[in-house]
Amino acid sequence: MRAIWGDHLRVTIDLPLAVDRECPVPLAVQVADQLREAMRTGRLRAGERLPSTRALAALLRVSRTVATDAYQQLYAEGWLDGRHGSGTYVADEALPYEQPTEQPTEQPTERPAEKPAEARGSARREPPPPGTVDLRAGRPWVFGYDTAAWRRAWRSAGDLALNAFPDPYGHPELRELLADHLRRARAVPVGAGNVMVTRGTGNGLDLIAATLLGPGTRAGVEEPGWRAARRIFALRGAEVVPCPVDEQGVIVDALPDDLRVLYTTPAHQFPVGGRLPIPRREKLLAWARRTGAIVVEDDYDAEFRYDVAPLPALYGLDPGRVVLLGTLSKSLGPDVGLGWLVAPAGLLDAVAERRTHLADRTSGPVQRAVATLLERGDLDRHLRRMRLEYARRREAIVEVLGPYVRGDTAGLHVMVTLPADVVPGLVRRAGERGVLLDTAEPHHIGPPRVHGLVLGYGSASRADVRRGCAVIRELIPPAEA
Amino acid sequence: MRAIWGDHLRVTIDLPLAVDRECPVPLAVQVADQLREAMRTGRLRAGERLPSTRALAALLRVSRTVATDAYQQLYAEGWLDGRHGSGTYVADEALPYEQPTEQPTEQPTERPAEKPAEARGSARREPPPPGTVDLRAGRPWVFGYDTAAWRRAWRSAGDLALNAFPDPYGHPELRELLADHLRRARAVPVGAGNVMVTRGTGNGLDLIAATLLGPGTRAGVEEPGWRAARRIFALRGAEVVPCPVDEQGVIVDALPDDLRVLYTTPAHQFPVGGRLPIPRREKLLAWARRTGAIVVEDDYDAEFRYDVAPLPALYGLDPGRVVLLGTLSKSLGPDVGLGWLVAPAGLLDAVAERRTHLADRTSGPVQRAVATLLERGDLDRHLRRMRLEYARRREAIVEVLGPYVRGDTAGLHVMVTLPADVVPGLVRRAGERGVLLDTAEPHHIGPPRVHGLVLGYGSASRADVRRGCAVIRELIPPAEA
Repeated sequence: MRAIWGDHLRVTIDLPLAVDRECPVPLAVQVADQLREAMRTGRLRAGERLPSTRALAALLRVSRTVATDAYQQLYAEGWLDGRHGSGTYVADEALPYEQPTEQPTEQPTERPAEKPAEARGSARREPPPPGTVDLRAGRPWVFGYDTAAWRRAWRSAGDLALNAFPDPYGHPELRELLADHLRRARAVPVGAGNVMVTRGTGNGLDLIAATLLGPGTRAGVEEPGWRAARRIFALRGAEVVPCPVDEQGVIVDALPDDLRVLYTTPAHQFPVGGRLPIPRREKLLAWARRTGAIVVEDDYDAEFRYDVAPLPALYGLDPGRVVLLGTLSKSLGPDVGLGWLVAPAGLLDAVAERRTHLADRTSGPVQRAVATLLERGDLDRHLRRMRLEYARRREAIVEVLGPYVRGDTAGLHVMVTLPADVVPGLVRRAGERGVLLDTAEPHHIGPPRVHGLVLGYGSASRADVRRGCAVIRELIPPAEA
Repeated sequence: MRAIWGDHLRVTIDLPLAVDRECPVPLAVQVADQLREAMRTGRLRAGERLPSTRALAALLRVSRTVATDAYQQLYAEGWLDGRHGSGTYVADEALPYEQPTEQPTEQPTERPAEKPAEARGSARREPPPPGTVDLRAGRPWVFGYDTAAWRRAWRSAGDLALNAFPDPYGHPELRELLADHLRRARAVPVGAGNVMVTRGTGNGLDLIAATLLGPGTRAGVEEPGWRAARRIFALRGAEVVPCPVDEQGVIVDALPDDLRVLYTTPAHQFPVGGRLPIPRREKLLAWARRTGAIVVEDDYDAEFRYDVAPLPALYGLDPGRVVLLGTLSKSLGPDVGLGWLVAPAGLLDAVAERRTHLADRTSGPVQRAVATLLERGDLDRHLRRMRLEYARRREAIVEVLGPYVRGDTAGLHVMVTLPADVVPGLVRRAGERGVLLDTAEPHHIGPPRVHGLVLGYGSASRADVRRGCAVIRELIPPAEA
């Protein structure tokens, strides 16, 4: 049946739906899964109208509650748009999550020929060869964003006039939008005057290091922890002090009293995965007040929690002693090149001055593009969708490797603890079977205290995550299984 | 007379043109000036057709050669498009140069209120208040670019898919385009394999410093010289060694033998304005080979020369000992956030590795936008136009302040040498009359050796440059005039 309506051609399609009352999966979940699949594969497209809950319930002979629950779930995930009083529509942003067979990346097809490839290996992290399962940590899924919103954002960047006087603090309107975002997403009481627009976590941490550190100062990093942090500190001349963590995060009682700066990941310790409990947060801040240290709170993947709400940020507990660093590198991708630094006003001014000294800044058009994503709610919708997807990938890992999995239900990686002697052989044999893995050992400064895999689920589709975990499970020696 | 043609409305206008045979200005220049003025003021607009040289010559009763020369000049400046066999048209990119009355900038209208304004003065360089003449150095003219090309470039940035594996060397296609640009504009024999895409000169210099310097190393900077260079080196822990310059550039005989790195501006010494002569370039490279130092050649405004072609880059004379840094900050504007670093392959690999350690990168969409500007010739056209405009502003300075002007006919600033005791009073009184000035003194590490004004003509229109110079001329005490 076809009918012309305005300038839109309206078409009715047949979409088979079914529920299995014998199946232990709740009926609402079954319905939501089928509708989601139809949207994912493009059978249902943006702007198309779904039947009313009454009609859907009648069609499937389920209760109205089942239909309503299914729609609620899809709405929460960002697949549907509810327009008040006018029905339920497929959201504009409902894009497929599956990785395209041809990756639309900018990677070189071949290397410039002046040096052998292995001599360059350390600098460039290559995308995985086709057919492999990439379970290395640190990369987000870059195929799930809304291309229409993305294009709109960069078009708006072109509307921005060139500015001869870039502001070291960042564009005022983006600072406002980031402060809003932080108040909503992280419940931190922050105003635009405390926010600086950076190019990401590395840039923010380096600005702090250039402002506060130098030869003769000591800077603490988590042990194990993010490798870049210790290099950034060391390259500003500071002595780097490893500060041990346990499964909950940094051990406050083990902190020395002479640190100028402590770098920490309280929301989701990298790589062990702990979430610093409130009493320890308060103890950490008491330590900072007593010793005069500045605590740098790297909130790198705080947008991704799959159970309860995130704990309050350290920054919110004591805005006078904490610098909060955030980034779009995990929520959108590292190629955007935008992050934020939240600090007490006096410190922020010192950082801005240092930034001017270094002739460092964030590209103006990038700031405009990100402001557009925030203004229009595109980033929020993206986060809602990715949260769902990552939660499922994480569940897929837990299903297979549950007993070995450590860390909070958050972020883009889990720690899979294994005996030290098992790890190297397992990584090698998994590699032979096309599964790329990272281990915990290189994230230590001293002798490794934590052994096993740092399993990232940002780069691999859900199917690949399952496949990779099955390979790992097979390779764990029976004595450990 | 009107005629409909296709979907374009074609209109014939009356454009008065005249030549004065008594005037010493060549006839072709007179004609070109009037046509340029008509395009500049918008009387003639993009896409409009000019008469043939034959018709123009007949109209003005000049020889055909005069008409041809006038068109040649305007073509070289980028005002005209010659379409083979189909006449001469006003180029798409022929935009007015005069500063709009309302500046389309992203500056805040008021500061966040948590700190008094003067406490922040050092970090943020404010745009000048309306009505002032800004002759401070270091800013380019950001009103002369082609908005259509600019929009097209950022639209193309939105077509780029997100990349989970940003390349520390930069996008391969942009590296190729930059290598082409350098071969054409700087005659340096460079391949894409030697080019890294940076975020600008500061970023490139900091990456070199993070790779080669640290506590216990000594790094040379020009005295006087670019202030950021010494701060960037010092913040990587190096001891900064001032190396005196004369009117030709750095004095090679005065260089110590124990420098790891020497930062220098051979194309156009900042701020004195010298161009390092070839024999001294060779002597400098011999010094570097003998001592093992790396010479960092900051080519910041090499696109802007108004007399002869630029001298060959140091990098071309000895690609084994030189790192060349370039930027779009002077040719387009500092807000773009893109530059390049050219280095021997082994050093480039070390820099890329260090860059990965620092989690530092250039935003992918920015790289795509700049690649579009290069691919389509938009940057070349822009440079051609700005070269003309800057040359005239410089001429306007020389007309008024000629006897005091030092430095090559290049770049975006001149040095106006004045006795030390004259400078502070002059700057103050000029400021009272709305003319903002920079001086040479702060560009020294030790006691100032060079005194006077570092007069920038990037931020002020030609009319404002004239106005500002007249004020300066009036304020120079009679004893000095």
